[in-house]
Amino acid sequence: MENMYTYQQLYAFCVAIFAKMGCSDADAAIAAKALIAADLRGIDSHGVARLSGYVRLWQAKRVNAMPQLKIVHETPSTAVVDGDAGLGLVVAPYAMQVAIDKARNVGTGWVSVKNSNHFGIAGYHAMMALPNDMIGIAMTNASALVAPTFSVERMLGTNPIAVAIPAGEEPAFVADFATTTAANGKLEILQRKNASTPTGWVQTKDGHESTDANELKSGGSLLPLGGDREHSSHKGYALGAIVDIFSAVLSGANYGPWVPPFPAYVPMPENMPGEGIGHFFGAMRIDAFRTPDEFKQHMDNWIQRFRSAKTVEGEEKVIIPGDPEREMEIIRMKDGIPLVNAVADDLKALAGKFSLQFA
Amino acid sequence: MENMYTYQQLYAFCVAIFAKMGCSDADAAIAAKALIAADLRGIDSHGVARLSGYVRLWQAKRVNAMPQLKIVHETPSTAVVDGDAGLGLVVAPYAMQVAIDKARNVGTGWVSVKNSNHFGIAGYHAMMALPNDMIGIAMTNASALVAPTFSVERMLGTNPIAVAIPAGEEPAFVADFATTTAANGKLEILQRKNASTPTGWVQTKDGHESTDANELKSGGSLLPLGGDREHSSHKGYALGAIVDIFSAVLSGANYGPWVPPFPAYVPMPENMPGEGIGHFFGAMRIDAFRTPDEFKQHMDNWIQRFRSAKTVEGEEKVIIPGDPEREMEIIRMKDGIPLVNAVADDLKALAGKFSLQFA
Repeated sequence: MENMYTYQQLYAFCVAIFAKMGCSDADAAIAAKALIAADLRGIDSHGVARLSGYVRLWQAKRVNAMPQLKIVHETPSTAVVDGDAGLGLVVAPYAMQVAIDKARNVGTGWVSVKNSNHFGIAGYHAMMALPNDMIGIAMTNASALVAPTFSVERMLGTNPIAVAIPAGEEPAFVADFATTTAANGKLEILQRKNASTPTGWVQTKDGHESTDANELKSGGSLLPLGGDREHSSHKGYALGAIVDIFSAVLSGANYGPWVPPFPAYVPMPENMPGEGIGHFFGAMRIDAFRTPDEFKQHMDNWIQRFRSAKTVEGEEKVIIPGDPEREMEIIRMKDGIPLVNAVADDLKALAGKFSLQFA
Repeated sequence: MENMYTYQQLYAFCVAIFAKMGCSDADAAIAAKALIAADLRGIDSHGVARLSGYVRLWQAKRVNAMPQLKIVHETPSTAVVDGDAGLGLVVAPYAMQVAIDKARNVGTGWVSVKNSNHFGIAGYHAMMALPNDMIGIAMTNASALVAPTFSVERMLGTNPIAVAIPAGEEPAFVADFATTTAANGKLEILQRKNASTPTGWVQTKDGHESTDANELKSGGSLLPLGGDREHSSHKGYALGAIVDIFSAVLSGANYGPWVPPFPAYVPMPENMPGEGIGHFFGAMRIDAFRTPDEFKQHMDNWIQRFRSAKTVEGEEKVIIPGDPEREMEIIRMKDGIPLVNAVADDLKALAGKFSLQFA
């Protein structure tokens, strides 16, 4: 069922595909690194499994392989970046670097982005702050799959939030999560197994409870973190809304039900109020608050105390956000990245289309 | 069962109590306004119901009625404020104003606070940004009542997040929520009714499922937003952790299980790593991103589109964060603020203690 590939194999292949799309060598490398970070970290739904989707968006002329990225408005601590319809995988690292540069100057930097496309995993971009002794924040909106509390209409994307915080001896704290109970990738795993979802993940097109992993195909919706009103889905809805507003209403991108869909065959929404999809990035210099040494000692203390908390019987330990992904990255860098047949076949077809070799 | 009071009555009484504690006239007014904002907005657990608790903290010398608030570290866009053990109700408006002033200068302002106490409702402080055409953000840590995913130990407070975003014709978007499935105040309401909780709100001291609204009294814990692992409680845990780190590890306050308790009779934790409790505030100037007119037009469009989303049968409309609290504020400003007998009696006892009159 599974096929193993080295990081280098997949990286070289992605670089070659992005180059075939017309990306510059530098952009192809930036995009490939961002994309495969998902596979390395075990978020298989957001990595090379989406490569052919990006290619189809380019073929449909929704992605510009040679964007002129630019700052269209700024203050000492903020900027709005126009992504010129480029790959989010290229636009996001550019915008995050703007945030980091501003933080270097005035303590923090905050960048809202319009006219972009899907950017892979949020955590990758947030983590760019870490080697600079900064806290990194990344979020993005996405096409609407999520029904707010009481709604049957899909109004929000899975709108993830990532926050990366440096520590000292301990590895960094890296939270990266969709603002829904479950991300779409979790549904895809259950679909492949013909399994049901727990309650609180999806609802039917009429807003009734459902455990059908295929519910979105018949007009149903993902549910905000919390699931239903009794379990505070209004909080997940508020979080997704904040991501949407910071990413798109601040920048001039599309928001809510008007965010462009990832599948190139889905028609664009009508009466779109902005340009492309939106992201939001932040960088905060640790030493804008206290000395990095002090901060890191206390982060180590925080992490060690939480990791050693007494657990429920049968559970080994309390997990620090980022632990599972970091451990996966070590394993996959060493042993390779497994791809299910469907993804491996998809990459082979892509290779054929561009007269390239794939493994 | 209920007693009605005007805003003016409760405000004057709180000012008088804070003055009796030794607060300056200015601080007594600031604290009273912040405290009663909770009652006005319908968050009864955080308003005058807590007044005697604040007094007991002052009697236990955990609250300093005459704090020297100061900035102990800063950059153009950041500051750390030392609350000098003052009332959070006084420290928070000071720190939020620092954030607003910095935003005026360089686009955004971010302030982490140490050595403070409970600050009432987060939303009140975040909303200070609105008349300045800024987005406001407020969060705070609190004493540990929440077990992270897989933990039986209480490691985090209910750690709320508030985000206030101005609109044009429409009222502002104001999200303000604990990062748990349910806040402690919700449990208190069920306790008074002798009712059970839904699943996913609390767990027993051994980490088993429970629907007992009194579970915290026998060593149980509140659960992070999500409830259990299957419903993504690790996301609520990550959110609570981010609030804790931004509020306390950045500033030098206490964090995790070391945050000082609100009830003055509960002993302080041992080996505390910081000073007091911590808060975090942010202010972002809208025109640091785009013109306020454009932004507000799009916020109006966002709000109107969400409010008119097709609803689940039986539900009237999709709610915009802040709608219920704003509607409650209008009603209570006009008709008065109802207090349950226990709270009215508590205020009468407090009046007696200080030789004051209460209604």
